[in-house]
Amino acid sequence: MAKIIKLNTVKKDFVYYVDELTSLCERDLTAINSIILDKLDSNVPLVQEIASYLINSGGKRLRPLFTSCSYQMCKKKNQNKQNHLGLAAAVEFIHAATLMHDDIVDESKKRRGQLTANEVWGNKTSVLVGDFLFSRAFQLMAKDGSSEILKLLSDTSVTIAEGEVLELANDKDPTINEDMYFEVIQAKTASLFSAACQVGAIATKTSFEKIEAVKTFGINFGMSFQLIDDAIDYSSSFYHLGKNIGDDFKQGKVTLPVILAYLRSNIEEKKYWKRTMQDLNQQKNDFEKAVKIINKYNCIEDTVERANHFANIAKDSLGIFDNTNFKKALINLTDSSLTRIN
Amino acid sequence: MAKIIKLNTVKKDFVYYVDELTSLCERDLTAINSIILDKLDSNVPLVQEIASYLINSGGKRLRPLFTSCSYQMCKKKNQNKQNHLGLAAAVEFIHAATLMHDDIVDESKKRRGQLTANEVWGNKTSVLVGDFLFSRAFQLMAKDGSSEILKLLSDTSVTIAEGEVLELANDKDPTINEDMYFEVIQAKTASLFSAACQVGAIATKTSFEKIEAVKTFGINFGMSFQLIDDAIDYSSSFYHLGKNIGDDFKQGKVTLPVILAYLRSNIEEKKYWKRTMQDLNQQKNDFEKAVKIINKYNCIEDTVERANHFANIAKDSLGIFDNTNFKKALINLTDSSLTRIN
Repeated sequence: MAKIIKLNTVKKDFVYYVDELTSLCERDLTAINSIILDKLDSNVPLVQEIASYLINSGGKRLRPLFTSCSYQMCKKKNQNKQNHLGLAAAVEFIHAATLMHDDIVDESKKRRGQLTANEVWGNKTSVLVGDFLFSRAFQLMAKDGSSEILKLLSDTSVTIAEGEVLELANDKDPTINEDMYFEVIQAKTASLFSAACQVGAIATKTSFEKIEAVKTFGINFGMSFQLIDDAIDYSSSFYHLGKNIGDDFKQGKVTLPVILAYLRSNIEEKKYWKRTMQDLNQQKNDFEKAVKIINKYNCIEDTVERANHFANIAKDSLGIFDNTNFKKALINLTDSSLTRIN
Repeated sequence: MAKIIKLNTVKKDFVYYVDELTSLCERDLTAINSIILDKLDSNVPLVQEIASYLINSGGKRLRPLFTSCSYQMCKKKNQNKQNHLGLAAAVEFIHAATLMHDDIVDESKKRRGQLTANEVWGNKTSVLVGDFLFSRAFQLMAKDGSSEILKLLSDTSVTIAEGEVLELANDKDPTINEDMYFEVIQAKTASLFSAACQVGAIATKTSFEKIEAVKTFGINFGMSFQLIDDAIDYSSSFYHLGKNIGDDFKQGKVTLPVILAYLRSNIEEKKYWKRTMQDLNQQKNDFEKAVKIINKYNCIEDTVERANHFANIAKDSLGIFDNTNFKKALINLTDSSLTRIN
């Protein structure tokens, strides 16, 4: 079994600190949720039904929380202009659109414990409702965004789409290296976390340094978050709500634990990875064997160590801010994200 | 055989007048094509390859031509600000993204005589490259668009997505009525033609009346254009380059000729439509039978008559403009679009 190295001393779990951040940003989040609800409205009932299904399916609203939190950390005293709320909703719509198209590409059947939209309504409708959500995001941006924010969010959308195609181009290939993989998750996952943070900061018209600080926080939090997600998928000691252990393996989705394991494998084991991941020729007990090889070479610990590296950069990037509850909440969240695998 | 009523007196065909408009807008179009080429660039080679494949596949660039032509008709003397070029490229990117996702939804194998991207690279990649093209469109808008244009183009994207879902919800249902169908094609097709025209006009900061005029032109041209496309699919006397006669029928795609035919059919014929379109249970010679019923009830003539109605509104809307070559080109194009079925 994997021996997970002790990385930090947080006592409470990730969900606790998400709730803490949610409480701190409660007023903003209520307003953001009300904008989201309003913008799910459509003359076409099916659009509204599916878009609502996805966006109300128990997501943590992490990205809007980051927008709100960055805004609170950067705003001047008596700054009351609330133009970040619509933009936080826009970020959540981009995220939802991406999830919807992701689930089609991954042929996912479940997300957060409920059936995916493509499973309920089919791929065709999901393609189009994803486009609707994307378009709604741009409508919100066009309404509330400065030219700087419009550039940031449209650039981020391009980056996400490119990252997704790159991931698909690498599909089922256990021989890609670590930096190629980091490029994918930076584009796919981390860039939107970072944009969410930047939007909140830019909306306050704060200094370049503070915008750069939350940008760095977002990117590195996102990298760390994704790597822990990847590790959880091979961590048999842990059942993560709404996600089944072994999903990545079954889909031949190559993530860091497998990349490290492949690089460290002997000839026989390399053949095993090619059969199971590349050819997707999987037999009974193959997942257990994957976990065994991954643990043999300490690939979970090392994935968590990589995640810890990014988490440290994320936390240090906040050094220029005062020690407010908002900052503390982000640090606790970053630490506790690592312990999701404990 | 269908007897096509004589609707207008143009001597030359649609392609001739597209070429005429292209010559008139040549300088703009060269600049727009160069922006398009530049924005197809991606760090991910596969993205560039697929996006280029689609966008260079022999489209007529009708929408950018409309943006350019509207700009030329509305601009003041000595107005030199060329901010409409990037926006025309954005419109073409939205169009390309829509086509890409459309082909997935319709399971199309060919477009303009060449294999569709989903046929060459698969649906998954096409979903993501479509998202890339969408995002590129918003990047271009964010760079060059006023808040009015951003609102227009993001609203149009929402409308298109809603129209596509509505079309899918009506899928294979020959019992929908004419107005339900008009709602779909107005959202799906006409709205982007209209937005293309409005963008050109708004970029010149012209009067409300002129913007409204080209808006009306675009919507009605688009309606007319789509209806003729629909009629062509059942017009066995005509082979339309790159599109195979009978494609809509084979896919169970209900368009105006079928809607009219169903409404006018006897009980036996209604059963036939339900079997072939709704159940998609098609046998040899069923397409020939469809053409026969459609012609029995003059549904091609009446579809063309509906198209003519919209074409007349489109042409009259240009009444407030001087009789420039640009205006004449739009009128010729609108007239000759109707003769595509002769």
